[in-house]
Amino acid sequence: MELHDLIARLPDGAVLTDSDLLESYRQDWARDPDAGTPLAVVRATSTDDVAATLRFAHEHTIPVVPRGAGSGLSGGATAVDGGIVLSTERMRTISVDPVTRTAIVQPGLLNAEVKRAVAEQGLWYPPDPSSFEICSIGGNAATNAGGLCCVKYGVTTDYVLGMEVVLADGTVVRLGGPRLKDSAGLSLTKLFVGSEGTLGVITELTLRLLPAQPPQSTVVASFATLSAATEAILGITGALRPSMLEFMDAVAINAVEDELRMGLDRKAAGLLVARSDAPGEFARHEAEIMVAVCEKVGATEVFHTEDPEEGEAFTAARRFAIPAVEKLGSLLLEDVGVPLPRLGDMINGVASIAERNEVIISVIAHAGDGNTHPLIVHDPADAAMTERAHTAFGEIMDLAIALGGTITGEHGVGRLKKAWLPDQLGPDVMALTRRIKDALDPHGILNPGSIL
Amino acid sequence: MELHDLIARLPDGAVLTDSDLLESYRQDWARDPDAGTPLAVVRATSTDDVAATLRFAHEHTIPVVPRGAGSGLSGGATAVDGGIVLSTERMRTISVDPVTRTAIVQPGLLNAEVKRAVAEQGLWYPPDPSSFEICSIGGNAATNAGGLCCVKYGVTTDYVLGMEVVLADGTVVRLGGPRLKDSAGLSLTKLFVGSEGTLGVITELTLRLLPAQPPQSTVVASFATLSAATEAILGITGALRPSMLEFMDAVAINAVEDELRMGLDRKAAGLLVARSDAPGEFARHEAEIMVAVCEKVGATEVFHTEDPEEGEAFTAARRFAIPAVEKLGSLLLEDVGVPLPRLGDMINGVASIAERNEVIISVIAHAGDGNTHPLIVHDPADAAMTERAHTAFGEIMDLAIALGGTITGEHGVGRLKKAWLPDQLGPDVMALTRRIKDALDPHGILNPGSIL
Repeated sequence: MELHDLIARLPDGAVLTDSDLLESYRQDWARDPDAGTPLAVVRATSTDDVAATLRFAHEHTIPVVPRGAGSGLSGGATAVDGGIVLSTERMRTISVDPVTRTAIVQPGLLNAEVKRAVAEQGLWYPPDPSSFEICSIGGNAATNAGGLCCVKYGVTTDYVLGMEVVLADGTVVRLGGPRLKDSAGLSLTKLFVGSEGTLGVITELTLRLLPAQPPQSTVVASFATLSAATEAILGITGALRPSMLEFMDAVAINAVEDELRMGLDRKAAGLLVARSDAPGEFARHEAEIMVAVCEKVGATEVFHTEDPEEGEAFTAARRFAIPAVEKLGSLLLEDVGVPLPRLGDMINGVASIAERNEVIISVIAHAGDGNTHPLIVHDPADAAMTERAHTAFGEIMDLAIALGGTITGEHGVGRLKKAWLPDQLGPDVMALTRRIKDALDPHGILNPGSIL
Repeated sequence: MELHDLIARLPDGAVLTDSDLLESYRQDWARDPDAGTPLAVVRATSTDDVAATLRFAHEHTIPVVPRGAGSGLSGGATAVDGGIVLSTERMRTISVDPVTRTAIVQPGLLNAEVKRAVAEQGLWYPPDPSSFEICSIGGNAATNAGGLCCVKYGVTTDYVLGMEVVLADGTVVRLGGPRLKDSAGLSLTKLFVGSEGTLGVITELTLRLLPAQPPQSTVVASFATLSAATEAILGITGALRPSMLEFMDAVAINAVEDELRMGLDRKAAGLLVARSDAPGEFARHEAEIMVAVCEKVGATEVFHTEDPEEGEAFTAARRFAIPAVEKLGSLLLEDVGVPLPRLGDMINGVASIAERNEVIISVIAHAGDGNTHPLIVHDPADAAMTERAHTAFGEIMDLAIALGGTITGEHGVGRLKKAWLPDQLGPDVMALTRRIKDALDPHGILNPGSIL
């Protein structure tokens, strides 16, 4: 094989071929059982390394799977047989410009590292996937990642002003820049955000930042019925814009309480954690409105705190729901979203799907923006149960589409969800997608099998 | 000609061919002297009309120039000889969903009409081009229009969650939808925003809305030097996020004062109008911070009001700057943007360009986001002066590019600026743009000559 040619083009140690090392780059957190074995892993240290790798792959028509931190949940970084896994984990510089309130970051930095670096200048990068301590900013851009703050602050694309991206043939282009307004030419920056490595490899991002977030007030409310909980969600979003509005069902509440012992109401059908970051006393004022909404719809318990640490503890409890529920068995992690008025239909529909397929499905949700994460519990040693779990996985996406929703709110399509994408988008949008893919990656070497 | 075939496919009266009527659709506000004469104008009443027109144009390879309200300033709706002008002015429905805080609008509604319709439900559509009373929401999406509030609230693309768009061959597709989070497939919605009618014709938009804007506090400050004014701009944006931060130079101040007689400081080199919409007393608090910044850098006059009507009067004065300066002569209207720290270099550079070319150039600016509108005054009857004005027009774009900026912040490239686009984007990004254009419009019938 011509691999020696690739090795010669890159810095010492950039190319891994040892089979043990390759093994650890075959899958992301989706643990795709159909993952292939790559020819090599390239750990790029620079844009030049990425460009050299893509030029090589282009010349030899070798598939390239771009990879950030490998924390993806849709199999967007699943390796393919005979391909190259191109990791950006070593590209980790950042420079912050407090005057234009922007940061220029390389893709390998973790989301949390970006947040910390800009916080040192009194600034804030809002998007906050639950995995923010372990996911990379490059992966966030590639999947248009969301998080808990999105209900008020939007998603990754809303913070990407520009980028450097390497195209399929190794050409390096710069798109956009540190300008809030720019109508010059097509919105190419936005096209690459969320393209999951199928159109190019992002080697640098120009991010828009906000001033530091004010201290948040926090409301925690328990409900005896799911319908009361969803009524409270619509009541809150109708009254104001919370900075966070998260939901956990009974399974998640009990799983978290088993681990953290923080006094959550184990008898509740649903729990909301809602926050306000309105300035000064307005945070308390908004929290009081949220308390009133919850009480009006018959919440069984409502708790309200101005203490940021206490509020953060409840937020962390919500973030901890996935690992807590994982104690019950292996998880298939869903990411469906619906327009807010259909949230109750989605949650009730998932309960029916669980019952019909005889599997436990715990629902947690970024409730304020209609993005739910049904967690399908199963035992991989039980083949019949695993098959039922996969059936439920598909039925939940079918339900989301039927409710006018999306099969993925923030994780991306990757390989795990691509079979459902045509049902959501329809043949004409799929054809449009294919035309753009073919125009930008005519040899089809970039992340083949992902999205399309 | 086969025009009878087009007429037969569309409702009675949809196709205009009378030469007087055609004349009024040849140009937009850019008044492009090279505008052609169209074969026909189609005033579509529905998506079906748009699709039928594009199918016809596709079959016969006839150019189609999509047109909103015709208020564009870059010649994006300049007619071409033998083509069809496809106007969406008659597509004017809107439905507002206060629960998901979204609106579904047809492209022909004016921006102001959208604002008023959502305001009836206590909601707010932020983007506010100065032309908001006469520009269409479809045109806003096609150019990724900005405005005065963008310094805090972003531009049109930040509010477009989905759309229906008719492709070059007449295929109708729906992209995105009323979901704040959606990572399913490529970000096609965002690609069509800002594409200036070169990739498809937008027939419906799903817009994200915010709760009604709180009352604003307003600060008006005059400065004896341009450097003091730019120092104040950077001081304000470094301290907080104003909801508006606008600049006028001496020419604009005097032109406005000539018309409105509101007591502006005629001796000032620059005037800032800044606003805060922070909740409750925080608006006053932020206004006081802005006052302090202005005083610290030596403002000659600083005025502060909590009265919304008085604040609106100063905002209206700023919006009135373009018609006021137009009393001095015909205008070439620029729209260049630079990263905020280069704003002073931009303003000083424009003064040099004016002096060198012996033309008056008045600078007004959405100062808080670095987007300036140099207004080049000239007398069209004076050929030599007109030529110098056009030279200055180009030199201002060259300067913006040299300062790391953009040739258009919010008006779009259209026909007037396309000669400069390659200088800003470079050959590789132009080639990338061409590949996408060719993939989506292989016969090149959509707004030919615009952008590319």
